[in-house]
Amino acid sequence: MPDTFLTELYCSATGDTLPRDRLLNLSPAGKPILCRYDLEGIRGAVDRDQVAARPPGMWRWAELLPLPLTQSPVTLGEGDTPLLPAARLGRELGLPKLWVKDESGNPTGSFKARGLSAAVTMATHLGAEAFAIPSAGNAGGALAAYSARAGKPCHVFVPADTPVITQQEVIAYGGNLVRVEGLINDCGKVVAARREALGAFDVSTLKEPYRIEGKKTMGLELAQQLGWRLPDVIVYPTGGGTGLIGMHKAFAELAGLGWIDSDKRPRFVSVQSTGCAPVVRAFEAGAQHAVPWENATTRAYGLRVPGAVGDFLMLAALRETNGTAVAVDDEALLADMLVLGQLEGINACPEGGACVTAVRALKEQGWLSADDEIVIFNTGAGTKYLETLPPLPTETIKPI
Amino acid sequence: MPDTFLTELYCSATGDTLPRDRLLNLSPAGKPILCRYDLEGIRGAVDRDQVAARPPGMWRWAELLPLPLTQSPVTLGEGDTPLLPAARLGRELGLPKLWVKDESGNPTGSFKARGLSAAVTMATHLGAEAFAIPSAGNAGGALAAYSARAGKPCHVFVPADTPVITQQEVIAYGGNLVRVEGLINDCGKVVAARREALGAFDVSTLKEPYRIEGKKTMGLELAQQLGWRLPDVIVYPTGGGTGLIGMHKAFAELAGLGWIDSDKRPRFVSVQSTGCAPVVRAFEAGAQHAVPWENATTRAYGLRVPGAVGDFLMLAALRETNGTAVAVDDEALLADMLVLGQLEGINACPEGGACVTAVRALKEQGWLSADDEIVIFNTGAGTKYLETLPPLPTETIKPI
Repeated sequence: MPDTFLTELYCSATGDTLPRDRLLNLSPAGKPILCRYDLEGIRGAVDRDQVAARPPGMWRWAELLPLPLTQSPVTLGEGDTPLLPAARLGRELGLPKLWVKDESGNPTGSFKARGLSAAVTMATHLGAEAFAIPSAGNAGGALAAYSARAGKPCHVFVPADTPVITQQEVIAYGGNLVRVEGLINDCGKVVAARREALGAFDVSTLKEPYRIEGKKTMGLELAQQLGWRLPDVIVYPTGGGTGLIGMHKAFAELAGLGWIDSDKRPRFVSVQSTGCAPVVRAFEAGAQHAVPWENATTRAYGLRVPGAVGDFLMLAALRETNGTAVAVDDEALLADMLVLGQLEGINACPEGGACVTAVRALKEQGWLSADDEIVIFNTGAGTKYLETLPPLPTETIKPI
Repeated sequence: MPDTFLTELYCSATGDTLPRDRLLNLSPAGKPILCRYDLEGIRGAVDRDQVAARPPGMWRWAELLPLPLTQSPVTLGEGDTPLLPAARLGRELGLPKLWVKDESGNPTGSFKARGLSAAVTMATHLGAEAFAIPSAGNAGGALAAYSARAGKPCHVFVPADTPVITQQEVIAYGGNLVRVEGLINDCGKVVAARREALGAFDVSTLKEPYRIEGKKTMGLELAQQLGWRLPDVIVYPTGGGTGLIGMHKAFAELAGLGWIDSDKRPRFVSVQSTGCAPVVRAFEAGAQHAVPWENATTRAYGLRVPGAVGDFLMLAALRETNGTAVAVDDEALLADMLVLGQLEGINACPEGGACVTAVRALKEQGWLSADDEIVIFNTGAGTKYLETLPPLPTETIKPI
C-alpha cells in the first residue's frame, strides 16, 4: 500500500497543481488550496466497513486525509461526535425527521478541533515551528490546544470583545493571546503583518490546505451514521464556511469511492446572523462572490466574519445542491439556543440556536416539509457563552 | 436471548437481595444498592470483539448495563472518551508510561454524564416523573440535560458559591435551580426534605443503584482501549467516589467474563484536596468508614464532599488493590490543571490537575516508579472553571 493517497494539491479557482511537500498558504491566484486523493487506489485498499470498525476519532478516515499513513497525527481524540435524534423539537416544528450533529463534545468544545488537528498535524509534518491565527472565538482555543499537543508556540489574535472564556482558554493552553480592537478581518491583517517576525505559520481558515480536510470528516461521519446514505437537507452556520465546503467535498469523495449512492446530495442551508450576512446577501443577489459586510455585529461570535476567502466556494455549494441561505436575528437565535437545551438536553451554542431559527423560518416558508430528513449542526458547547446570557432566575436558601 | 442480564439488586453492606422492578434509593440498611449480572449468560450471548465493533457510546456495553436490551436509553452520546498518551508530562515526571483518560468531551463536559444517563434512563423506565439532586458542580448540569432529554422536570440544589457557569447551565437546560448557603451535604438534606413535595426521585450519588453502572463504563472502556488489559495504577479524584467504586466493579465483571486476565488489578489512588480529605484521613487511620470533614473548602469543587455514603466501598477498593489515598493542596492542583493544558493540550479541570499533583508526590515518595503504567482521570472540562483563575496577561492593540 502506498504511504498516502493524497495525489496533489490544486488551486480552487484555477485548478493549477501545487507541490504537496512544503508549507503553503493561498495559491498564486490568492485563493484556497484543496487536496485531491487517488479514490481508485483507496477503493482497492480499504472498504467502508473496515473504516467504520476502527477505534473512534476522525483520523480513522486516514486514507481520505492528507497525513502519510505511517505518521502519527497531532490528536486529542477529536471527531465521532453523536448524531442525535431531535424528536421533541421536531414535533414542535412539524419536522419529524430532524437530527442534530452535536459537535460540542470535541476537544476544546467545538468543531474547530477537527480543522486545527489536521492543520497542526500537517504543518508540523512539513516543518512549521510556530503557529498564528485570527479567531472570532473557538478557533483560537483549538489552535492553542493542538499547538500545546505538538509542543510548539502559537499566537492567537482575537477581537477584544470576544467572550472572556474563549480568551482565557487560549492562555490556559499556553498560547500567546493578543486582543485587537476590531473584528476577525482586522485580526487577520495583524497576523499577516506579524507572522514573519514571529516565525509562525498562518493557519487562518482556508488560507492553508488542511483545516478543510479535518472539517470534511463531519460529512464522512454523517454518511456512516445514517447507514451510508445522506439526509435531504443540512443546515449549517457559516462564518468562514470551511465545514460546509468540506462536507460538500466529502460527499463527492464518498460518491467517487462508491461508498454512498452518487446521485443524491443534501441541499445545503447557510445560516448567518442579520448583523453579518455577506453570504446570504450574495446568494440572494445571484453573485459569485460576497461583498464584505460593514459594521458586523452579532452575539453568535462564530458568525461575525464580514468577509471569507472561500465565499465563492460556499456560494457554489449552495447552488449546486439547490440549497439556500438564511439570516436570523440575534434575539431569536439566542432564544433557540435555549430551546435546544430545554427540549433536547443539547449543550447548544448560539450558532446551533441559529440553525433552529433558520429551520423554523424555512418551514414557515414551505422550503422545508415534514418529509424532509434534516440535519442541523450544533458547532460547539454553549458553556463558553453562558456569560452572555442575562442573569437567570433562581432561589437562594439557608441550610436546614 | 433474555431481555436483560441483570439478575438482581443487592445491599452493598448486607448482601440482601432487593427487587429490581421498582424505584429504590438506599437499602433498608441505609447503604448503597448494587447490580449483579448473569456473567455466564453474557459470555454465551456476546463476545468482547462484538461489543468493541458497535457504534461509539457507553450504551454499547448493553449486556453489562441494567436497561432491558429492547428499551432505548436516555442518551446524548456519552462515553467512549479518548485515552491520551501524556508523553511530554510523563517525561517531566519521569514516568514514561503515563496516560490521561479525558472525560471532558462527554455531554455537559464531564464524567457525570455517564452516571446521570444511566440513572435517568432507569428511573424513567421504572416510572419516575421528576428528579432531584444535590450537586457540588457538574452533576447538576448533567441531571438537567438528561432530564430535558427525557422530557421530565428536575430540581438541582447547589452550594451558593458553586462556579456560576455550573449554575447557569442548569437553568439553560430548563432545570429548577436552588442555591443553598452551605455544602453539598446541606444540599442533600434539602433534597431529602423536599423530594416528596416535589414528586421527585432522588438521584444523589450512590443513593440509587444505577449512576455507578454508568460510571463503571469508564473502566470497561479503559480495558478495551488498552487492548483488553489493565494499567498498573489508576489515579482518580474522589468526591462521592462512584467512579472508583464503579471501575472496581467493572474490572471484576470483565474478569468474570474472561475478557481480561483475572489476576492483575490496578492499584487505585484516591485523590482529594487537603481542604476536604475524609477518605485520605480514614485510609491513613486504617478505618472502615470516614468521619465527615469539618469546614470543607477547596476550589476543586468536585472534591468538596465532606462525607460520602459509599466511603466504605472506596476504602475497601483502595485496600483490596494495594492502592493509596493522597491529599493535595489547592495551589498545586490549580497549577497542575494548567500544566495538563500547556504540556498536553488537555482541557483540564481542577480535579484533573489534582491527579497530576498526586502523581508528582507519589513519584517523589517512590510509590510510583518509571516502570508503572499509570492512567490519570481528567473528569471534566476546565472551561467551566476558567472564571476561578486570576486575570491572565494579555496585550490589547489597535487594528492596522
